[in-house]
Amino acid sequence: MLSLVSKNKPAISASVLASARIIRLASTSATATTSATSPTSSSKPETSAVKRSGTGPMSFKTRKAIETEYNDKPTVVILGSGWGAISFLKHIDTKRYNVSIISPRNYFLFTPLLPSAPVGTVDEKSIIEPVVNFALKKKGNVTYYEATATSINTDRNTVTIDSLSNVASLNGSSKSSNIAALQQNDSAEVKYDYLITAVGAEPNTFGIPGVEKYGNFLKEIPHSLQIRKKFAANLDQANMLPPGDPERKRLLSIVVVGGGPTGVETAGELQDYVNEDLRKFLPSLADEVQIHLVEALPIVLNMFEKKLSSYAQTVLEKTSIKIHLKTAVSKVEANHLVAKTKNDDGTTTEETIPYGTLIWATGNKARPIVTDLFKKIPEQAKNTRALTINNYLQVIGTKNVFAIGDNAFIGLPPTAQVAHQQAEYLAKSFDKMSQLPQFHEKLANRKNKYDLLFEENKFKKFNYIHFGALAYLGSEKAIANITYGKRSLYTGGGLITFYIWRLSYLAMLLSARLRFKVITDWMKLAFFKRDFFKGL
Amino acid sequence: MLSLVSKNKPAISASVLASARIIRLASTSATATTSATSPTSSSKPETSAVKRSGTGPMSFKTRKAIETEYNDKPTVVILGSGWGAISFLKHIDTKRYNVSIISPRNYFLFTPLLPSAPVGTVDEKSIIEPVVNFALKKKGNVTYYEATATSINTDRNTVTIDSLSNVASLNGSSKSSNIAALQQNDSAEVKYDYLITAVGAEPNTFGIPGVEKYGNFLKEIPHSLQIRKKFAANLDQANMLPPGDPERKRLLSIVVVGGGPTGVETAGELQDYVNEDLRKFLPSLADEVQIHLVEALPIVLNMFEKKLSSYAQTVLEKTSIKIHLKTAVSKVEANHLVAKTKNDDGTTTEETIPYGTLIWATGNKARPIVTDLFKKIPEQAKNTRALTINNYLQVIGTKNVFAIGDNAFIGLPPTAQVAHQQAEYLAKSFDKMSQLPQFHEKLANRKNKYDLLFEENKFKKFNYIHFGALAYLGSEKAIANITYGKRSLYTGGGLITFYIWRLSYLAMLLSARLRFKVITDWMKLAFFKRDFFKGL
Repeated sequence: MLSLVSKNKPAISASVLASARIIRLASTSATATTSATSPTSSSKPETSAVKRSGTGPMSFKTRKAIETEYNDKPTVVILGSGWGAISFLKHIDTKRYNVSIISPRNYFLFTPLLPSAPVGTVDEKSIIEPVVNFALKKKGNVTYYEATATSINTDRNTVTIDSLSNVASLNGSSKSSNIAALQQNDSAEVKYDYLITAVGAEPNTFGIPGVEKYGNFLKEIPHSLQIRKKFAANLDQANMLPPGDPERKRLLSIVVVGGGPTGVETAGELQDYVNEDLRKFLPSLADEVQIHLVEALPIVLNMFEKKLSSYAQTVLEKTSIKIHLKTAVSKVEANHLVAKTKNDDGTTTEETIPYGTLIWATGNKARPIVTDLFKKIPEQAKNTRALTINNYLQVIGTKNVFAIGDNAFIGLPPTAQVAHQQAEYLAKSFDKMSQLPQFHEKLANRKNKYDLLFEENKFKKFNYIHFGALAYLGSEKAIANITYGKRSLYTGGGLITFYIWRLSYLAMLLSARLRFKVITDWMKLAFFKRDFFKGL
Repeated sequence: MLSLVSKNKPAISASVLASARIIRLASTSATATTSATSPTSSSKPETSAVKRSGTGPMSFKTRKAIETEYNDKPTVVILGSGWGAISFLKHIDTKRYNVSIISPRNYFLFTPLLPSAPVGTVDEKSIIEPVVNFALKKKGNVTYYEATATSINTDRNTVTIDSLSNVASLNGSSKSSNIAALQQNDSAEVKYDYLITAVGAEPNTFGIPGVEKYGNFLKEIPHSLQIRKKFAANLDQANMLPPGDPERKRLLSIVVVGGGPTGVETAGELQDYVNEDLRKFLPSLADEVQIHLVEALPIVLNMFEKKLSSYAQTVLEKTSIKIHLKTAVSKVEANHLVAKTKNDDGTTTEETIPYGTLIWATGNKARPIVTDLFKKIPEQAKNTRALTINNYLQVIGTKNVFAIGDNAFIGLPPTAQVAHQQAEYLAKSFDKMSQLPQFHEKLANRKNKYDLLFEENKFKKFNYIHFGALAYLGSEKAIANITYGKRSLYTGGGLITFYIWRLSYLAMLLSARLRFKVITDWMKLAFFKRDFFKGL
């Protein structure tokens, strides 16, 4: 229905009226003015007439597309498709809000199982779920923009999107006429009343030369494919060299940098593949593979209590993984890296480790859209790693921008369970916001101390409950510390813990399809080898 | 054991003695001489000394590597990793023969389910099984060369291999010292006593301009990935254009050329994806997808009886697939193709069909290694499509080269069941050959009429038993004509036949892992959408 809500209902704030409007940018250099919310939008109900104007002289004017369902619900725009974004999407009440989600990655990735993917313990497709599948389960209309968000424009409540590849409008009665204004690879601005930024973080190389060029990260699905490809090519090459050849030795050396859960699990999974599968058809090669685990701290898995991390270290070393503690990588070359180990007497030993495959599993840094936002909000200007948020998860210095997950900092570790709990909390806050009379208007009109409005209205503060930590070590052994807040419920390591690890992950999977896929992958593993196909 | 069998046993033919010897070619232009079988091979047991000589002045001499297990078993070299090659490998008695298998594709592909792969009804990895997995199940030593065979040299009983990427020696006590002579990307010659050529065929474009450049074949796994990528990109692009836009219409047009089982099943699977999955999140797009099926004959699925192929046609048309019969493609351009339809009155109508995705599922032609062999054997000189073979599957004009599957012609269609039965038959023949006293020597010394030796020794002739044909039509309907030779056991079409189709395919799968994977893919389909991820 192309009708202005203002005809039917008394005015609510202008910012709410502007819901879901898409502003086309002729070029990224063109800036939208505040006229974006002017009433001319209602005088041009036909968007198709303007949709091809991007190249003419009009292209430097601001263009608007009119949303089809112009209702009184505020529009929430979610940035990202990871733990925070998808958990929020699952819990937000779409009868109370119009929801748009923007992410260049059109699927959710179950990151805890990513270390299992390169060697094929689970398939890449078994740990991803399309964004549209989550959106389809919602009662209300959800629009998914497959695009990169490049800039958050808090001055005019828009997000700039770039390299748009698709838009899907789900469950709506709208016949995609608001999409018609957009073309592929367009730049545009998407208007929001509330913004949830959950874009996560990028791998951090800490400026160490060569990491970006020669190393493999393990944060996304393509990284897993790259690691498999590289490792498989190295195995092929090494197999064609005689035993004892130094080049063969180098090709069979794998260095994993980072002794956190990702690094440890990746090392463990690689060693599993070598011991359980590769050994069956290329035993001499399997014997010569050497995995190194490099950690700057004096201990691996430092989030666990001492007893468990020591146990982990013993297990890893028994499966022939070489652990380098108190060791920092200083330089990465094409075929070797240089690492410096701090000795107990205060001296430093420099070591050269040749490698065939280098996996960089340590460090997070802010994404460009987040660092860009630091500059726009005086209260965030000093940040370098993440947006500082208050107890209501509001980005400090804004009234209608919230941040969850790794792109936000509130003194908690950058984990899936933090992002997930923040998303659940925030969706509940949004429920309450819509139920309180005039809350949206009050917030929109407020000039400062935005958090006080939440306090006055008795919103609960976000309270994180730590459910513990789990890590797989390889050879069907895991460690777990299961807690409820500060109360410890289970602490252990070994085979039984491995099954607890599996059950916990199954419980954490966000969809029934993911559960089915992961269960069948694990069942398969009981009878058959891993699916380790180079190039697939 | 590096010992010459001639020390222990009285001489058998020189050709048998040369078993499993690898002859390195310094460059592809260097030709091996008959000195390859000279006794110098025994005087140089250390291959590592010569292994790096490929670049020096010695590189134009012929080099040999010495096999580790130099025994009295004849060496059978298998070319290919398809139905014929893998079925033969499964059935050959490796206690009686040394077996080597050469193929650039390191997995078997269950081709009957390939049409299900592009849309994710089954995963690509669910229909492939590594060659080494089959080899591991054998009792004796099997060597797998991951390489392209470029030439069969019947004059000296060798196969030239090129772009070698890996060698795996399975189950053997040998410590890969015969591999040590080879380097990656080497050219080499592999000696055989018996050769089984089962390299299949290539897609045939019949010289029609543009097919190779713009069309997608569907014969291998990468083809499936390419079709998905193309189709997904077209859906994205089309979705960003307004309904009615001719470019949108073109992008949503899919042309499948070839009305045989591959073409029909591919069209049916694509339509299934559109109706069952795409419609859920992009309904307007799903409505506009138009699949065309182009067939030069007056009927689709002409290997079935008229009743069934008419039924198939009705089902396809009901699911909105447009069938163009008696239509031949004459030219393919980037965005459209030109097709000529023969009318009943003898005239011809020319039609232009715009397309976004073109799938070329018709026609086979001989691979270069086969056409090269035509020239070398006078009896094969007139062939263009496949090697002619006798009733014992011997390549006519040779004594120790056998051909099975699509690269052989004996008056049967190029199907999996023909290749499979030929492989089983041939493995049995090889059993008998090894049991008959002096048969190998007699064959090696024979100068002509090689087939008579088989006749004299009362070898059964190959007898093909037709078990019928099956084809999936989409929307859970299939047709089947199940026979035993000329006796018809079941003829039908519809839902029940679809389950018969599924059960038959499960029975045909060559490994337990493949069965597990395909069953779980089908189970998943009952509850969830297809895994249709662009770029994965």
